[in-house]
Amino acid sequence: MASPLILVTNDDGVYAPGIRALFDAMHSLGDAVIVAPERDNSAVSHALTMHRPLRVMELEKNIYTLDGTPTDCVTLAVNKILPRKPDLIVSGINPGANLGDDISYSGTVSAAIEGTMFGIPSLAFSLAGPPPYSFEVSAAVAWKLASMALIWKQPPATLLNINIPPIAAAEIRGIRFTRQGTRRYKDSIQETYDPWGRKHYWIGGGTAHWSGGEDSDEHAISSGYISVTPIQLDLTNHEGLAYLEKEWMM
Amino acid sequence: MASPLILVTNDDGVYAPGIRALFDAMHSLGDAVIVAPERDNSAVSHALTMHRPLRVMELEKNIYTLDGTPTDCVTLAVNKILPRKPDLIVSGINPGANLGDDISYSGTVSAAIEGTMFGIPSLAFSLAGPPPYSFEVSAAVAWKLASMALIWKQPPATLLNINIPPIAAAEIRGIRFTRQGTRRYKDSIQETYDPWGRKHYWIGGGTAHWSGGEDSDEHAISSGYISVTPIQLDLTNHEGLAYLEKEWMM
Repeated sequence: MASPLILVTNDDGVYAPGIRALFDAMHSLGDAVIVAPERDNSAVSHALTMHRPLRVMELEKNIYTLDGTPTDCVTLAVNKILPRKPDLIVSGINPGANLGDDISYSGTVSAAIEGTMFGIPSLAFSLAGPPPYSFEVSAAVAWKLASMALIWKQPPATLLNINIPPIAAAEIRGIRFTRQGTRRYKDSIQETYDPWGRKHYWIGGGTAHWSGGEDSDEHAISSGYISVTPIQLDLTNHEGLAYLEKEWMM
Repeated sequence: MASPLILVTNDDGVYAPGIRALFDAMHSLGDAVIVAPERDNSAVSHALTMHRPLRVMELEKNIYTLDGTPTDCVTLAVNKILPRKPDLIVSGINPGANLGDDISYSGTVSAAIEGTMFGIPSLAFSLAGPPPYSFEVSAAVAWKLASMALIWKQPPATLLNINIPPIAAAEIRGIRFTRQGTRRYKDSIQETYDPWGRKHYWIGGGTAHWSGGEDSDEHAISSGYISVTPIQLDLTNHEGLAYLEKEWMM
């Protein structure tokens, strides 16, 4: 059997320590290749660059970078850079959790969405805060889950969003399969002024309010578990369809 | 009863003809306010600008613009610009369909996702191609669906993704509530060279392959129906959770 081909990407850029820890962890599982953005692409979500051409550069053996988004990296890797369709895509390790509604903004998770669209098993890894981030434990967790993903199937058209608590390996209580919780922010826009006295708004900060119950991703992390959430491509609210057909019929 | 407050946004920018047609259509339903990006933000997905402050400018009465993404526009409108929480958010009208997997990249749809996160009924409108685009029929459709959305409730934590076929009003066969189809592209990356002879890749073009069946969004549009798809915020594959707990147990 050929050695598995593993694509490694992220949203923080090719020089981020999280992706290097993930790359190193994948070496014992197969042939790992990095294709990652040149610079930080945090909160770019599933953005795709279609208004300009993209240039791919090989920094060193099996490490490629391009001036685009995480989604660009996955689509170019699969279609143009890699010698064949990869057996697994791993994205991260993101410094900071991707939980609840926040995953909708996440470049880390979106890379795994793009991989899933190609029918490739895809895992997104994030290490919960606070900083400073040390990736030793989370890289070992990534190794374990990637090795499982090479053996067992994922649910169809579904990626796994994996969050790791910021604690020592001996303190981690295990893995929990979770649902996506909800997070709403309060006062998450700050007001500031430019050198000419004009008001600007800066998105960030504020207080997060969690809900979602004991089976949620956030609850697992705050309880010391690794959270593994299956995230599907189909966004249709199927129950909502029946409701609309009944209530909105004209 | 106070007149409804309606936020109008898009991803093509404040000067796009589609948003102006939508804005004009909303006037008879309530107080309409545009908050839209300064320039084209197509395919930015749910990107949020957190690395720099944003400046809001009032171009004319009830028309605001800012140098950010559609998601930035919605969060700043709701939190800072509008006098109160709007009763409805409408996004579009996008020139070109947002169907199947493509909605994951769409700025038009992401604005409605952001609105839904605030608990505000949100509708995304797209007019299917080919160009040239004339927004008269689609603006009338938007008026009708917005007036319904002000009366009837949407399913919880769910936006409506609305696509309109590019045909005359008399030819439209009605409204269909649909599920999100799937679209995969083939050969959708072109190779090109810069003035120094270096190879670049340009994402776009290629052939789209549809699947999803007769209840899908794409089938409705190609059959001459308006497609209304309920899109939910919860991305969890709940069936997949049970599968993982059974198959991946360690």
